[in-house]
Amino acid sequence: MSATHDGEPIPVFFLSDSTGISAETMGNALLLHFPDHRFERTLIPFITTPDDAREVVRRIDATMESGVTPLVFATAALDDVRHELVKTRAPLIDFFDMHMQQVEAILGTRGARTPARLHGVGDVKRYNARMQAVEYAIEHDDGQSVRSLDKADVILVAPSRCGKTPTTMYLALQHGLRVANYPLIDDDFTSADLPRPIGHLADRCFGLITSAARLCAVRSERRPDSTYASLRQCTYELKRAEALYRAHDLPIIDSSAKSVEEMSTLILQVLARRSHPAH
Amino acid sequence: MSATHDGEPIPVFFLSDSTGISAETMGNALLLHFPDHRFERTLIPFITTPDDAREVVRRIDATMESGVTPLVFATAALDDVRHELVKTRAPLIDFFDMHMQQVEAILGTRGARTPARLHGVGDVKRYNARMQAVEYAIEHDDGQSVRSLDKADVILVAPSRCGKTPTTMYLALQHGLRVANYPLIDDDFTSADLPRPIGHLADRCFGLITSAARLCAVRSERRPDSTYASLRQCTYELKRAEALYRAHDLPIIDSSAKSVEEMSTLILQVLARRSHPAH
Repeated sequence: MSATHDGEPIPVFFLSDSTGISAETMGNALLLHFPDHRFERTLIPFITTPDDAREVVRRIDATMESGVTPLVFATAALDDVRHELVKTRAPLIDFFDMHMQQVEAILGTRGARTPARLHGVGDVKRYNARMQAVEYAIEHDDGQSVRSLDKADVILVAPSRCGKTPTTMYLALQHGLRVANYPLIDDDFTSADLPRPIGHLADRCFGLITSAARLCAVRSERRPDSTYASLRQCTYELKRAEALYRAHDLPIIDSSAKSVEEMSTLILQVLARRSHPAH
Repeated sequence: MSATHDGEPIPVFFLSDSTGISAETMGNALLLHFPDHRFERTLIPFITTPDDAREVVRRIDATMESGVTPLVFATAALDDVRHELVKTRAPLIDFFDMHMQQVEAILGTRGARTPARLHGVGDVKRYNARMQAVEYAIEHDDGQSVRSLDKADVILVAPSRCGKTPTTMYLALQHGLRVANYPLIDDDFTSADLPRPIGHLADRCFGLITSAARLCAVRSERRPDSTYASLRQCTYELKRAEALYRAHDLPIIDSSAKSVEEMSTLILQVLARRSHPAH
């Protein structure tokens, strides 16, 4: 029994009694460390009955008949589902059971072990806040509306095409923050003040920068050979924007080599430090 | 040493050499099973040096002086960081090390164990596709633009306020799918055909429904006491919408008790089945 055939991708299964997002997240975090292997990923979510589980086991075991050992990542909270899943001939990497036992030991109490629905509606109030945050973000995308900017938890400020919008959406959707974004234009650089609509809101503004080369590349995709996309213009806007951020003490996030998740994490860290100044 | 003091929340730490999103996802999936406990969560991301790690251990150990055992979830891929983190007096729930060993055993090769950056930019092509998908989603939100609808991977169709927009954003941001959404209005119910702009695109349309009571509640928040929000109007629109979906064989997703993550997972399942009809 060998784990890999030359050139053949290794089957990977993510199993869950819920969406499988946790199993995928953790499983992919591990697979990232094997860049030389090819994987063929299959998500099997919503395995909620022993019958479902037996069917899944049949499917996984069938892949073993070709002599390939698949990787099977599972996060099933339901005992009767998990009892069936462990019957697979493939080795099962269970993110739930052992860690659940660790948490139970530390807390000195047994966990509910009902279907978890971490990614379900769950806390309705929190869920609705997330949905409203998405609406708020869309209304306030790219400075479209300056109405109720003072209700923003976070305002992302930057020249056009520095990555404001996806970061805005991520913070809204995943963290329920009301995020507005405000595009800086040439007119905003004639004064040392922040633009009027956000002038009194510096306490919640974050300044985004990127590299001139990257900004030039991104803008050129939209408007090739324009002044707007020229390296000279990009360099100018970034330099002036950064000076403005520094003058007003805005936290500066460099988006040039960072993902929306990384930028969002940095922003959340600043917010956390502000609400718990001790750390 | 007891895990919980009456009424005092239990400190929970999520530690990572990257964003900590994996540690939070898995940790929260476990904590969900202890609804009677209160937790005070602290994310400590970007622990990239042994010095950082020692500082984190000091901070965690300090919380133990009050006699409370914190829960510490970690996903550090860097060996020298992890070697410091395990020195904490608190029990460490390590999502990485043991499972990494399991994967290494199955694949018969050692993982890279460099900083993982699952939530980093990573595969630039895939990352850029996600960012472009967010732009596409915003341009095509709520039927704003019917231009390039034929480039959509998915079109969500529904009466107003059935949850199209957040699901659209989630699929775009997390999965890089180009998702448009199309609001059904009364005029669309006068014909048995799909609305003209999506008439030839039924193969990628998904119909959303919800319960009339829920739709009425959501609409009433926006426009109280309007015909638009009335139970009668909501019932009518949902009934006609569902009939339209059925007539054109659209997959139907009921959003009434489902999160955006759950709806997205169902949609992804349909897409996966279509591209691999065997399963």
